[in-house]
Amino acid sequence: MKLTPDRKYIYELTIKVRDYEIDAEGIVNNAVYLNYMEHTRHEFCQQAGLSFREMCARKIYPVLRSAQIEYLHPLTLGDTAVSRLGMMRRGPLFVFIQDIYLPDGTPVARADISVATLEDGRLTRGDTLAEAFKDYL
Amino acid sequence: MKLTPDRKYIYELTIKVRDYEIDAEGIVNNAVYLNYMEHTRHEFCQQAGLSFREMCARKIYPVLRSAQIEYLHPLTLGDTAVSRLGMMRRGPLFVFIQDIYLPDGTPVARADISVATLEDGRLTRGDTLAEAFKDYL
Amino acid sequence: MKLTPDRKYIYELTIKVRDYEIDAEGIVNNAVYLNYMEHTRHEFCQQAGLSFREMCARKIYPVLRSAQIEYLHPLTLGDTAVSRLGMMRRGPLFVFIQDIYLPDGTPVARADISVATLEDGRLTRGDTLAEAFKDYL
Amino acid sequence: MKLTPDRKYIYELTIKVRDYEIDAEGIVNNAVYLNYMEHTRHEFCQQAGLSFREMCARKIYPVLRSAQIEYLHPLTLGDTAVSRLGMMRRGPLFVFIQDIYLPDGTPVARADISVATLEDGRLTRGDTLAEAFKDYL
Repeated sequence: MKLTPDRKYIYELTIKVRDYEIDAEGIVNNAVYLNYMEHTRHEFCQQAGLSFREMCARKIYPVLRSAQIEYLHPLTLGDTAVSRLGMMRRGPLFVFIQDIYLPDGTPVARADISVATLEDGRLTRGDTLAEAFKDYL
Repeated sequence: MKLTPDRKYIYELTIKVRDYEIDAEGIVNNAVYLNYMEHTRHEFCQQAGLSFREMCARKIYPVLRSAQIEYLHPLTLGDTAVSRLGMMRRGPLFVFIQDIYLPDGTPVARADISVATLEDGRLTRGDTLAEAFKDYL
Repeated sequence: MKLTPDRKYIYELTIKVRDYEIDAEGIVNNAVYLNYMEHTRHEFCQQAGLSFREMCARKIYPVLRSAQIEYLHPLTLGDTAVSRLGMMRRGPLFVFIQDIYLPDGTPVARADISVATLEDGRLTRGDTLAEAFKDYL
Repeated sequence: MKLTPDRKYIYELTIKVRDYEIDAEGIVNNAVYLNYMEHTRHEFCQQAGLSFREMCARKIYPVLRSAQIEYLHPLTLGDTAVSRLGMMRRGPLFVFIQDIYLPDGTPVARADISVATLEDGRLTRGDTLAEAFKDYL
C-alpha cells in the first residue's frame, strides 16, 4: 500500500475528540477517522463555496470509491487533532490527501480518499465539481 | 492501491443494515463499513476460541495499522449483507481479507485490514494471537 | 419521570453487542440504546408489512417527539441483548414501549418513545400508519 | 413526561453538525443528540477543572441513570447548534439540564439527564464530584 507521496495541504480543521468516540481499548475507534475525514472534506467544500448541502439540493453526490488509511498514533480521551486536506484530480476521480496530526505535529493518521461524482444518479467525469473547486485543484 | 489478490474466506457473518447507518445520500455511510468489518473480526475471534473480551481481560489489544477499502456497490435501507473474512500473517502483522457482498453475490466492498498486537502496552510479534488462531492461519 | 406502567410486548429482536459500541467506561454507550431501539422499531415495521424503506419511498416519515430512557444494567463486550417492543396510539402520536433485557431476564433499559408522522412534509394524525399497523394496535 | 421547569444554564458549547450524523430522513438522527449532550457535559467538566479523562484515571465513572428528551425542531445538513447546560444535585444523582438551540434561539431539543457516580466499581453519593464542581452547583 502506497499513499500519494506528495502531501500538500490546502485546508485544515481542528477537531476535538468526543469521548464517546473512544472504544474499549481506550483509543478513538478506527472507523471514527473516516468520520473526521468526511467532516473535514465537507467543511472544506462549504468554505470553498459549494457545500455538501447545496450539492445534495442539486442532486450532485460525491461517493467514495476507495480509502487507504495508515494509523500511526492513537488519539485518546480529551485529545485535540488537526485534520489537514489536499485535493487533486485523477481522471474522473477526486483524490483527497487527508492527514491528521496532534497539535505538536505528531502524525496520527494518513489517508488517500478517492471520490467519484454521481449527478442525477449517473457517474460523471466530475466537471461540475472541478469547476466549483477550480481554485483549489 | 492493490488489495491482496488471493481472497480466501474462512468465516462469514450476515449483517442486516440498520437504518440509522444510512446517511443523507441514502446509502450506508463509508465509515460504517469499518464498523461491519470490526464486528466481523470480533465475531470470528469469539467463534475461533479467543474473544475480544478475553483479549482485553488479558491486556492483549489488537490495533489497526492500516485499512484499504474499495467501495463497489452501495448498501441501502433494509439491505442484508454477507461479510466474509480471511486471515493471514505477514511479519508481525495479521492481515484480514474482508469482503462484503449482497446475498445474490454482488460485491459491495473489499478491504485489507492490517492489525498489530499490543500486549501490556508493547508491540509484539503477535505470537500469542497466532497460537490462539493457529488453526485458521 | 414515569414510564407507561403497562409494558406489553408484541415483538422482540435479539441484538448482539458490537464491540465498537463500548465506550471508555467499558460499557455500551448511552446513545447506542437509541440506535438499538430504532433498529428494533424498523425491524418490527418491516415484519409487520410496511418497512421504513417503503415509508420513505411514499414520503411518510416517522419522527421522534420524545424519548424517556431508564438505564438499569450495563451491557458490555460480547453481550447479547433481547430488545422487546410494544406499541400504542396516543392522540396523533405512536408510543413505543421499548425494553431491553439480558437473555437471563435481567432488565437492561426501559424506554417510552413517542413518534409523530410527517407525510409530504406535514404533521398528520398518523392514520396511514395506524391503518398499516392496525393488527398490532 | 415533565422536564425540570427551571432551566438555568451555566455553560454553552457551539456544535457544528457533521453531515454523517444526518440519516435517511435528512435530519440529525435522534441518537446523535445524546452524543452532543455527552460531549457538552464532558467539555463542561474539563473546563470546570475535572476532565472525564482525569475521572477515568481516578476510577470515577459517571453513569447515566435516565434521559428524558423532547425533540422540538430538526437539525439538518450544515446546521450549527448551541448546546446549553445546567447542573443540579438530586440526592445521590446529578441532574443535567441540557437544551439545544439554533443560533437564532429556536429550541431544537430539551433534555434532563440523570447521572450516578461509580467509584472503584461502587455506587457512591457523588461527594467527590460534588466537591470538584461545587462552584457550579
